[in-house]
Amino acid sequence: MVYELYYWPGIQGRGEFVRLALEQAAAPYVDIALVAEDEGGGVRAMERWLHDESLEQPPFAPPFLRVGRQLIGQTANILLFLGGRLDLAPRDAAGKRWTHQLQLTLADFVVEIHDTHHPIGGGLYYREQQPEARRRSKDFRESRLPKFLNYFERVMKCNPGGSTRMVGRRLSYVDLSMAQVVAGLQYAFPKASREALRICPHLRTLHDEVFSLPRIKRYVASGRRLAFNDDDIFRHYPELDG
Amino acid sequence: MVYELYYWPGIQGRGEFVRLALEQAAAPYVDIALVAEDEGGGVRAMERWLHDESLEQPPFAPPFLRVGRQLIGQTANILLFLGGRLDLAPRDAAGKRWTHQLQLTLADFVVEIHDTHHPIGGGLYYREQQPEARRRSKDFRESRLPKFLNYFERVMKCNPGGSTRMVGRRLSYVDLSMAQVVAGLQYAFPKASREALRICPHLRTLHDEVFSLPRIKRYVASGRRLAFNDDDIFRHYPELDG
Repeated sequence: MVYELYYWPGIQGRGEFVRLALEQAAAPYVDIALVAEDEGGGVRAMERWLHDESLEQPPFAPPFLRVGRQLIGQTANILLFLGGRLDLAPRDAAGKRWTHQLQLTLADFVVEIHDTHHPIGGGLYYREQQPEARRRSKDFRESRLPKFLNYFERVMKCNPGGSTRMVGRRLSYVDLSMAQVVAGLQYAFPKASREALRICPHLRTLHDEVFSLPRIKRYVASGRRLAFNDDDIFRHYPELDG
Repeated sequence: MVYELYYWPGIQGRGEFVRLALEQAAAPYVDIALVAEDEGGGVRAMERWLHDESLEQPPFAPPFLRVGRQLIGQTANILLFLGGRLDLAPRDAAGKRWTHQLQLTLADFVVEIHDTHHPIGGGLYYREQQPEARRRSKDFRESRLPKFLNYFERVMKCNPGGSTRMVGRRLSYVDLSMAQVVAGLQYAFPKASREALRICPHLRTLHDEVFSLPRIKRYVASGRRLAFNDDDIFRHYPELDG
């Protein structure tokens, strides 16, 4: 079974949460964003699915995963599906549910991170909403960033499987996603995230560990993992970092 | 098994998506928001759980559902859990996954609806972000509202189980949630939603049908369902309706 991942080329975006799970599991997959359009990849391939009026279960937006005849959308839903198959989630139903709940809370956090630079509309440029972005980012840095990070730190601290993981004893997809969010925040908000992470030692350690995993290191070194950049969810605009 | 639903008193909010499923299934539940504080309910009961440092699986925010010793958070996750138990979801794994995917897309829509009146920060008053709310609402009305509604209309139209339902042949929790979103939009954006729903006959019919279901009618008439109001997700500020 070869998975096909459809997402925008040129950015990590929400696709990266799925990629990290596929890479860590050494799962066979094709990243369609990296396939040239004239070889059946890229945006054209993605949009063919998005605009296919004959689909019974059309995704609303990328990322989506093609698995046989199924197209699975919504990042957290894709990871819920892959978690069991790739052995990146607890095996019991309650553990799967808790892992998914944390992933959904991370997804909420990611929306808020994105909206710091796009508080008015995703269809407008940053420069068209810069004053609003400054106000939203101030609120984010002072209130939402510490609230979310302190919550996830608390989750690690009270994990009965051990404070080196988000859930249970073994690595799960939500560990990978959490590390990715920490990395993104360090890129986008170097000052504010350093301050907020000061009291989150478990999150800092998790980030370092995930990006030291041999398969994740190989993935980062392969060139397939794009660099953070300012077309992406995590953007470094110094004026938003306080 | 008596379910306990924890949410803010005084508003429908995200709790209402859970209530509609519990009501339609005639499931035994206690709406803790409706229980007086001195009888162990209300905000105090909710915050006791949110601040309980001994919890191994703390919810980030309400709503959350207490089921025996489990606390389940994240609206869509609660509904994924309840869907099978209350017979409000398809029985096969792929059907459950697709229903959940749609609920997650509705959750994204709800965030965007909320942020029309709170584009800068949930901790600030509306009056403190009114100019930004006007800009965000314009973008919402012109771009996001039709995009989401047309997507859900398309989902109904191409549902192989029949265009009277979102998924499969039988009523599911995502039908209830979709109808609730249509009702909320009609309250918050009477002009813009009338315009956008003009080309969405299936969504209009679904809304009318759901609120004609005997159990939902009884629930609405019971007084337990609060009225829409302007402390809630769906707010009627005429200046945001264009």
